[in-house]
Amino acid sequence: MQQQWIQERIALGRSFITKLADDTPSAEGYETDQEQRKPQPPLSKPPMTKQVIPLPQAFGNLGRGEDFLDIVNRRKSHRVYTDESISLEALSFLLWCTQGVKEIRGRAYATIRTVPSGGARHPFECYLAIRKVEGLAPGLYHYLPLQHGLEYIGQPDDLEDFINESLCGQSWAKKAGVVFYYSCVFYRAEWRYGIWAHAPILMDSGHVTENLYLAATALGLGGCAVAAVEPHLIDEALGLDGKEETVFYAMPVGTVRPEDQPQEQAFYAFVQQQGL
Amino acid sequence: MQQQWIQERIALGRSFITKLADDTPSAEGYETDQEQRKPQPPLSKPPMTKQVIPLPQAFGNLGRGEDFLDIVNRRKSHRVYTDESISLEALSFLLWCTQGVKEIRGRAYATIRTVPSGGARHPFECYLAIRKVEGLAPGLYHYLPLQHGLEYIGQPDDLEDFINESLCGQSWAKKAGVVFYYSCVFYRAEWRYGIWAHAPILMDSGHVTENLYLAATALGLGGCAVAAVEPHLIDEALGLDGKEETVFYAMPVGTVRPEDQPQEQAFYAFVQQQGL
Repeated sequence: MQQQWIQERIALGRSFITKLADDTPSAEGYETDQEQRKPQPPLSKPPMTKQVIPLPQAFGNLGRGEDFLDIVNRRKSHRVYTDESISLEALSFLLWCTQGVKEIRGRAYATIRTVPSGGARHPFECYLAIRKVEGLAPGLYHYLPLQHGLEYIGQPDDLEDFINESLCGQSWAKKAGVVFYYSCVFYRAEWRYGIWAHAPILMDSGHVTENLYLAATALGLGGCAVAAVEPHLIDEALGLDGKEETVFYAMPVGTVRPEDQPQEQAFYAFVQQQGL
Repeated sequence: MQQQWIQERIALGRSFITKLADDTPSAEGYETDQEQRKPQPPLSKPPMTKQVIPLPQAFGNLGRGEDFLDIVNRRKSHRVYTDESISLEALSFLLWCTQGVKEIRGRAYATIRTVPSGGARHPFECYLAIRKVEGLAPGLYHYLPLQHGLEYIGQPDDLEDFINESLCGQSWAKKAGVVFYYSCVFYRAEWRYGIWAHAPILMDSGHVTENLYLAATALGLGGCAVAAVEPHLIDEALGLDGKEETVFYAMPVGTVRPEDQPQEQAFYAFVQQQGL
């Protein structure tokens, strides 16, 4: 392990956060595809199958009656889940709060969603590994934001193994009722922002998962965002090419109860053990 | 402008989102500084001055009485602000919801905050350009999360010019009551995640600004996150070195009213003009 290589990698990572600002003199005269009036890519991925499973749009009393501040204060990471199923309404609520389409701007220029995204590009697709959701067979699904529906993609040989391996061996996730996998369709953002698209894509992804954290908290569910994913494994299972679209972020969500709090604390046992 | 250079930059950007996964074979045997038991950096930046301005901790009825789903549905970008001031309680609420420290884990291992952050590293500092907040002189401030207080840093020659230039000429921001500037203290995340720290940092930054969007919405305020910042200009004004700590994300927030909706729409006039 070369010390110099590490330092170069750290410097590259830092420069990415500052949007490679010091490199941009070379970009003089650069025009993005939007500036060149090239055709725009679709606002969301077309359905991959022919069967749309509609999601409930009436949320009834879900997430009602608690103040925003209390939800923010209550939000925390949850890695211990009960065996109870998540209701279909709750899943629908989570999908709506994180990628739901409120409006189309122009003829087909942009989707206005429940989360903000730079230039309203919304370059993400949301896939689900459903393990325990009322009314849905276990398996892999794709969220269709323009229909607010799901489509069934298939079933891995062993769903819990798939979840575990897809998240680099974070075995606690096997007990989640559902795992949200987010892919990026790069060109959807690159069309507008070109070489500057990529840092904002990651910022935008945080907008999505934060809404997922808060919406889950509002419903009394729990989850924990995971950046350590195995894109090759997930892409293959979902039929993504891994180049134009690849999965890069995930969040297991499950049913939780206060009695499991000591088990949650066990994830931080190293802090005391190491006297940190 | 070389076509090849553009393609290389796009490929580099994409690989960053996938956390440079294909490059990691070279990282065999790599240990982060935490794994090497190197000393941990401070959980937040020590005060830069000797005067702490305490912020109100009682939020009364702020943000109460509205359902989470309605806040999510109502959230949108706002770039048109009225001349009314933001109250000190409201500013305190926004800072609490975005960077507030709820708990310290271990002796001094991690801050548990109102937003999630990978490994609870919370590598950000929050600075404010205050233009119109009740009870605070206009100028630049630094948020002290461990005290839930502010410290005054100074006053640029012309605050509105500074805001405009710091956001690459987005002149609408000059009318915001306050601009939130987020810096990254890189080593705070690198200590734990080393060469893999940087994509998660950007994801975490989205968690923060999403809470800012929602908290502002809950108070009837409005804002718009801005990734196009001039780090050199802002770092200099705030006394940051631009290497270990640099500003990379910002969000102006101001008072808004429904009557200004047509003016908001004018920002999207190009969509109709270009028939998009």
